[in-house]
Amino acid sequence: MMAADAIYDFLQELAEWMDVYVCNFFSDLEQDGFSNNPLFHGIIAEVPEQHKTKEGHTKIGYALYFYSYSSWSGRAIYMEDLYVMPEFRGTLALAAGCHQLNFTVLDWNKPSMDFYLSQGSFDITASMGYHCMRCEGEALEHLAQL
Amino acid sequence: MMAADAIYDFLQELAEWMDVYVCNFFSDLEQDGFSNNPLFHGIIAEVPEQHKTKEGHTKIGYALYFYSYSSWSGRAIYMEDLYVMPEFRGTLALAAGCHQLNFTVLDWNKPSMDFYLSQGSFDITASMGYHCMRCEGEALEHLAQL
Repeated sequence: MMAADAIYDFLQELAEWMDVYVCNFFSDLEQDGFSNNPLFHGIIAEVPEQHKTKEGHTKIGYALYFYSYSSWSGRAIYMEDLYVMPEFRGTLALAAGCHQLNFTVLDWNKPSMDFYLSQGSFDITASMGYHCMRCEGEALEHLAQL
Repeated sequence: MMAADAIYDFLQELAEWMDVYVCNFFSDLEQDGFSNNPLFHGIIAEVPEQHKTKEGHTKIGYALYFYSYSSWSGRAIYMEDLYVMPEFRGTLALAAGCHQLNFTVLDWNKPSMDFYLSQGSFDITASMGYHCMRCEGEALEHLAQL
């Protein structure tokens, strides 16, 4: 369960940086990602002891992803989070067995947007008009009762 | 396998309407959605014989969705497709056991956008700046080899 601990710690760190509140409890994260039929998968990036941070950390980043599906083109991956401690940014390793990697970026996060564009990703909101929609809370309950 | 047949037929119908080409083969769709660990789930909407269409169809719509995950708020559903034949539009039934329903709408599809907004969904691209990003083809192969 060390991986769940590490991911939850990173999640809190990311939330603090983004000034958002994590509603997801550790017990839910552990259950949802580390049981027999996990809803997501996580990768922890570690460096050898000699490269540890000033604070003594060897776990320096994480990715959280799940398999998704495109009607048009089949198997895909959705990357929910990608976080690397600032001092280790600049490299990215990823193994992908899918046709597409999809993710979202907030428009104020220009360094991330520029990085992904430089790697050949494209912004399908700008180029094709995709808008992300969300239904939650009372509206979702109402929809479920229609 | 009748469900896979019906979903594939609807997918072709939707692709024709959107003037796009389906790269996903029937055999892949069947394998990906109807094996032991399905990557997506489908719902077929059927009407009783007495309400069948002029062309004799009783299957009048479908939804294709998969479970997704939000780091901040946990279990969610991503609705990949929702299609109802034009003459049956106006009602929507959905059972949701998740905290969020996420999906994308193309900005030129104003009737759909207006419908979802009227049901209490919100456009998080407009309100929060979420941009959909995609990496595929050579760029994805390159990323996987970094």
